[in-house]
Amino acid sequence: MTDATTLLADMTNRARVAARTLATLPTATKAAALRAAAQALRDAAPQILSANASDMAKATEAGLSNAMLDRLKLDAGRVAAMADGVTAVAGLADPVGAIIDERERPNGLRLRRVRVPIGVIGIIYESRPNVTADAAALAVMAGNAVILRGGSEAIESNRAIHAALVAGLVAAGIPADAAQLVPTTDRAAVGAMLAADGASGAGAIDLIVPRGGKGLVARVQAEARVPVLAHLDGINHIYVDASADPAMARAIVVDAKMRRTGVCGAMETLLIDRAYPDPVGLVSALRDAGCEVRGGPGLRALVPDLVPTTDMDWDTEYLEAIASAGLVDGLEGALRFIARHSSHHTDAIVAADESVATRFLAEVDSAIVLWNASTQFADGGEFGLGAEIGIATGRLHARGPVALEGLTTYKWVGYGTGQVRG
Amino acid sequence: MTDATTLLADMTNRARVAARTLATLPTATKAAALRAAAQALRDAAPQILSANASDMAKATEAGLSNAMLDRLKLDAGRVAAMADGVTAVAGLADPVGAIIDERERPNGLRLRRVRVPIGVIGIIYESRPNVTADAAALAVMAGNAVILRGGSEAIESNRAIHAALVAGLVAAGIPADAAQLVPTTDRAAVGAMLAADGASGAGAIDLIVPRGGKGLVARVQAEARVPVLAHLDGINHIYVDASADPAMARAIVVDAKMRRTGVCGAMETLLIDRAYPDPVGLVSALRDAGCEVRGGPGLRALVPDLVPTTDMDWDTEYLEAIASAGLVDGLEGALRFIARHSSHHTDAIVAADESVATRFLAEVDSAIVLWNASTQFADGGEFGLGAEIGIATGRLHARGPVALEGLTTYKWVGYGTGQVRG
Repeated sequence: MTDATTLLADMTNRARVAARTLATLPTATKAAALRAAAQALRDAAPQILSANASDMAKATEAGLSNAMLDRLKLDAGRVAAMADGVTAVAGLADPVGAIIDERERPNGLRLRRVRVPIGVIGIIYESRPNVTADAAALAVMAGNAVILRGGSEAIESNRAIHAALVAGLVAAGIPADAAQLVPTTDRAAVGAMLAADGASGAGAIDLIVPRGGKGLVARVQAEARVPVLAHLDGINHIYVDASADPAMARAIVVDAKMRRTGVCGAMETLLIDRAYPDPVGLVSALRDAGCEVRGGPGLRALVPDLVPTTDMDWDTEYLEAIASAGLVDGLEGALRFIARHSSHHTDAIVAADESVATRFLAEVDSAIVLWNASTQFADGGEFGLGAEIGIATGRLHARGPVALEGLTTYKWVGYGTGQVRG
Repeated sequence: MTDATTLLADMTNRARVAARTLATLPTATKAAALRAAAQALRDAAPQILSANASDMAKATEAGLSNAMLDRLKLDAGRVAAMADGVTAVAGLADPVGAIIDERERPNGLRLRRVRVPIGVIGIIYESRPNVTADAAALAVMAGNAVILRGGSEAIESNRAIHAALVAGLVAAGIPADAAQLVPTTDRAAVGAMLAADGASGAGAIDLIVPRGGKGLVARVQAEARVPVLAHLDGINHIYVDASADPAMARAIVVDAKMRRTGVCGAMETLLIDRAYPDPVGLVSALRDAGCEVRGGPGLRALVPDLVPTTDMDWDTEYLEAIASAGLVDGLEGALRFIARHSSHHTDAIVAADESVATRFLAEVDSAIVLWNASTQFADGGEFGLGAEIGIATGRLHARGPVALEGLTTYKWVGYGTGQVRG
């Protein structure tokens, strides 16, 4: 065994013990512990800011980009926001213990499916140190132990945040091993987390959630032996049907692309029904908002100065002020196009015709499908989930924004009076 | 690409196209198609039995064990039962389209989580040819396309069953690619199925369900890049508390071990509270039923002629008339023991004391936990699910008996009136 494997084996074993305690804690205990952790974060602001200053100095010296430095940087406001985030999670409805369904068999055996925590969650993330607090709070509120592995550039910030968090949790009676931070920046520790599928189905780490850029998510998805909740791409489409109200279509398309171009819910591809009355108006609205529009041949016949799309454009998540746009043959054309190019994240239709919209919502196979609304609503907060650990585009366990419920599973509980099968 | 990879890529692409059609079929259409498939199986009984006779002849010549030959063998009764099984699945409640929850946001955006099929399911199984019909029926009723890979010793039987099944489905208007059988016995085809995780999170095969012995399940779990629903072991415990009614305890323990010793729900380990009044009676009841009892040191002090347990016994799934038995220090001792040795399948308590039982049910981390009932109830049919595709001991997506609902996922559907985030 490598050092990293030994380290992770020890951490996961301690996490499993803590998870058994966490699994049966009353909601009030978990909420009080998170409030104590939030207060501890506020109290430790000077230490956290000083650790962050040290990370920032090293990162600046190492020549990190301004975007990365901004993600790494903490100030008094960001520390306060982090603490407020933990307090907010303490106020969310606890999914643990909910009875999903209940039945009584003819032999008198009563059966319930009861929501329980998953167990041990691993979070692998990059520069933003606030993930240390956010992700730990969500995992613990859902009754899980968590193993946190942040970016090496944020190690001192993460250590300071983690120390405060754990001090708060422990003061409220939660085991310290409920939230562990991988203490080393050795990259082999990530490999050890991804390989931690344990023996005989039990799983040393039950679920990994990667938080960060595409490079990180791709590595995690490629290497993980442990189940992963994540999305790699958000290549989101909006289909504007012939029946769409043009003013609504322009407003939704511009918001979906330009409100924030760097989020996973941003529109990347605009599909316009060949029978839509004002395709040029849609392109102009995007351009007026500062977006570069790349067009397929049909659309370029109408707007000749568009940058031509290449085949690659339709499979590209720009995450900037660029959109691909093209004409399609009505709903059927849009469905075919989306089936081929969607990343199964969020796809939307703008249409007045309910029968067209209903078919779109039923037939587009994505985690989130929207009718007459901006794709930028793809967010746990906007969905009313309070907070999210991430957005998942896989098909199993949880899809779309994943919040507390996605961090739980269920077990079957049977109440007998001596039943045997005989 | 190897031949097997090319073959599987073609099959999974066709399965994905069929899955899109299946996803939106009305319940009545799916049910009618399964009834047509059942009738086609009945009509094809002569061809199926002739194909099976050919498999049996080769298997006998190859020297397969009697147990394997019995699993392979079909007769008129077994073909009829297979057809009846398909008809029964056609009568189950369709989970697809169910609204899991619904909410309206302050901005007027209405959100629903709606149950949808998973997509493409792979089933990898061994000698029993009836799995071809059972698994295909369940997958299709839940709106999924299915890729079936049976054992090479059953290839002719499986081809005949599959041909009848597809003829029935197609006659009822379901695409032929809804249920495909891997046509080759090349073992590389299994590897290609396990590797078929597709690109960008979409997944060529979305879920693999292995049906068969431990060797098969272990290979699938070790190699799969695709999510797997399965259980490797059923090392199931019964804890008999001091408060248990002795007659009930004896009846449950004997049923749990001896009703059928080869099923995954069979009890393998008996834990007796040191304060239980009649441990010897429990051992005698098992022995009287024909069970070999291996005992830990504490129990051997009471029943000196027990075979001594070795460390290995506590982690062994015997699947025969052998049980390990030992004394534990009350509930706490049982919980500690089970946390260390359980395979997270099914664990039970026999107790009259409700507070002890409640703690056991809450703290034992297994897919199924039972109070005063035999572990042999661990079965989809007994749970009222109608049928099961298998029992899962992992923690994600579905746990315990997996039936139609476990073969579905959900998507978020949003209904707007022009909402933008702004």
